[in-house]
Amino acid sequence: MSAVEVTDIGALMSEIGQKARLGARALAIASPEQKRTALLTAAGALNAHRKKILQANALDMEAARTKGISGAFLDRLELTDKRIDGIIEAVRTIADLPDPVGTVISEWDRPNGLHIERVRTPLGVIGVIFESRPNVTADAGALCIKSGNAVILRGGSDSFHSSTAIVDCLLDGLHLAGLPVGCVQLVPTTDREAVGEMLKGLGGTIDVIVPRGGKSLVARVQSEARVPVFAHLEGLVHVYIDRSADLEKAVTVTLNAKMRRTGICGAAETLLVHQDVVATHLKPIVEALIAKGCEIRGDAQVQALIADAKPATEQDWRTEYEDAIISVKVVESLEAAIAHIEHYSSHHTEAIIAEDAAAVEKFFNEIDSAILVHNASTQFADGGEFGFGGEIGIATGKMHARGPVGVEQLTSFKYRVRGNGQLRP
Amino acid sequence: MSAVEVTDIGALMSEIGQKARLGARALAIASPEQKRTALLTAAGALNAHRKKILQANALDMEAARTKGISGAFLDRLELTDKRIDGIIEAVRTIADLPDPVGTVISEWDRPNGLHIERVRTPLGVIGVIFESRPNVTADAGALCIKSGNAVILRGGSDSFHSSTAIVDCLLDGLHLAGLPVGCVQLVPTTDREAVGEMLKGLGGTIDVIVPRGGKSLVARVQSEARVPVFAHLEGLVHVYIDRSADLEKAVTVTLNAKMRRTGICGAAETLLVHQDVVATHLKPIVEALIAKGCEIRGDAQVQALIADAKPATEQDWRTEYEDAIISVKVVESLEAAIAHIEHYSSHHTEAIIAEDAAAVEKFFNEIDSAILVHNASTQFADGGEFGFGGEIGIATGKMHARGPVGVEQLTSFKYRVRGNGQLRP
Repeated sequence: MSAVEVTDIGALMSEIGQKARLGARALAIASPEQKRTALLTAAGALNAHRKKILQANALDMEAARTKGISGAFLDRLELTDKRIDGIIEAVRTIADLPDPVGTVISEWDRPNGLHIERVRTPLGVIGVIFESRPNVTADAGALCIKSGNAVILRGGSDSFHSSTAIVDCLLDGLHLAGLPVGCVQLVPTTDREAVGEMLKGLGGTIDVIVPRGGKSLVARVQSEARVPVFAHLEGLVHVYIDRSADLEKAVTVTLNAKMRRTGICGAAETLLVHQDVVATHLKPIVEALIAKGCEIRGDAQVQALIADAKPATEQDWRTEYEDAIISVKVVESLEAAIAHIEHYSSHHTEAIIAEDAAAVEKFFNEIDSAILVHNASTQFADGGEFGFGGEIGIATGKMHARGPVGVEQLTSFKYRVRGNGQLRP
Repeated sequence: MSAVEVTDIGALMSEIGQKARLGARALAIASPEQKRTALLTAAGALNAHRKKILQANALDMEAARTKGISGAFLDRLELTDKRIDGIIEAVRTIADLPDPVGTVISEWDRPNGLHIERVRTPLGVIGVIFESRPNVTADAGALCIKSGNAVILRGGSDSFHSSTAIVDCLLDGLHLAGLPVGCVQLVPTTDREAVGEMLKGLGGTIDVIVPRGGKSLVARVQSEARVPVFAHLEGLVHVYIDRSADLEKAVTVTLNAKMRRTGICGAAETLLVHQDVVATHLKPIVEALIAKGCEIRGDAQVQALIADAKPATEQDWRTEYEDAIISVKVVESLEAAIAHIEHYSSHHTEAIIAEDAAAVEKFFNEIDSAILVHNASTQFADGGEFGFGGEIGIATGKMHARGPVGVEQLTSFKYRVRGNGQLRP
């Protein structure tokens, strides 16, 4: 259960890549029942080996404390019985999702009698690089198995024992379902060179890299990866209060969007308020935020209205606080709100609070972010909340996957063309 | 109408990039009618300026002949009245395709009352790097306009005058529809440094690169591009004759797949024949190919049966001839055929000739190529033949686009979430 001392990282990673290819081949042609069995067995193993997982986690926690690691990090690292229940529940939910592989996405007939089907196929091998959150091990492993992809997991060194114990349970499931161990592999070294090898794609083996962690990890992966990456660097999320906004929705939705959890990527960072509702809406919204402990950084109009507001600088419109701070700006029109968002947004999630349907449609059409929300909290930007059963991450790129990345987004497609002797003229 | 002498390629390309972004923004919110008007007007202009286009092409042809350029290249470069008719027809067909932008791909309700829609959006800016085929200018320009993307076209230097004359007609269409010139730009220099700048993405401006041309161009683009690429390096296409194959279909389909046009990517390069039908099927198929002038390179069994067959070496199974040559191998089973294809294929297109439905399903399920064909010619691997109205290329990668790349594949998507005050618990 300890990280292996490896001298030749290149050889180790190359072997992992070869095993992953065999795993991917087996998973691509595995039956839906086989994959479901693997996952339900894994869920059972997670329950049966609960004590072993908690012991492994205790080792990680002790080592982290010895290193003097801080509160929030420790909190993410810690496993409890309740958290293991959550992990098991997630694996079971994923097991019971419809199997995406082989699904006919669309089909049509050609005038010459050819019948064409577009069907889902797995992507192949997914590389997941994550920081010390043991639950990512189970979520990513289960989503990849369900979508028919082999996965190479490279977790943070501080969660190594916890991740190993969880992967062992996934391997129990694969074994019982007759699937090879190459389907789910945890990189058995915490050497950073292993990450470098993964970013190069292991000789064409890795089809997609998914980084899960802080901005510095995502930035490194985005700049160094030679294979496609599903990720978001930041969630600079906006809430726009239109002149037609219902006051109560404006207050409650903004409060939830900002303060439910301030550290997640769907949390609001900037509030834009139409000038026509400054007198009626701005104060109650901002006062509700202040009452919950949120710091306000506003433009001149906001500062004039709200005694506690600090001045917002240009940098504030560009900042994802991930904290109980919000920047607030008055805009003269819907168009000005759209222009501000298109200029500053990270294209993750934006919300409009409005009763005017035309304003909503304009906002929905003209803003190019992965998720646009009308009269609801931006914190719904989540695979589980979308009904995907889980997510391996949220993507803000435009290629292939966008928004929450669930099992469907982990697939590609191929065409099946059925004929009866057609020749091309 | 001459290529500009440019000293600062970096500054030129940066300016083109900025114009493209403005063009992309305008096209993203253009109405379907506006884009259709642009394309139908462009088709009219292509017809009206036919003489000017032919004159420009005559300049290109003359320069190419002076350089001593060869037959096939000259043939691709040449425009005739009939070829201009084809270009106009393609632009009209694309104009009348359903507009993909804003189409709801899927929608569903969540238990909390949120209604989620997944809708198509343009990708943004497409960079097309192509060799001297003037028709690519019109096809790529029209497909990008229809799908709401700005396009930066960098054509081969030998077709510069022809491409310029065609782009002028597209600009007429954009002008009449009230769309900015940044929507379609032809790089006004044939300096190769411009290609290098495009491959780097013009500072995050280019969302996808599409190379259209020979292997060396595609290989350069795939290895140097820092943005996603839609392409296929080669089409090492297989036809497998199952033991259940109908003899007549086996003969006619193989002949069409190999010999209709030998230089296109959907042309067959390797024929695999099940050992149980060697006695009945192999000879008639191969004799039909020989009668049409095809060279046969076979394994020992093929050489024993066919006097004219040359020996196939290991290299033959890896070679896309793009010529009237085919490699032929006898396989002992369907499984052996699948294993050969998975080992040697470029994952473009493969066909099975069979009457046994179970064999077809196994072939369709287990082979991971973009297009799988049953009892029909592999030369149907084409956007037009698929009913896409046209194609900007064919992709063999698994990310985003696969197979023929038409207007739908030139789009991304975003989520629209409609609520009435929902807060996340």
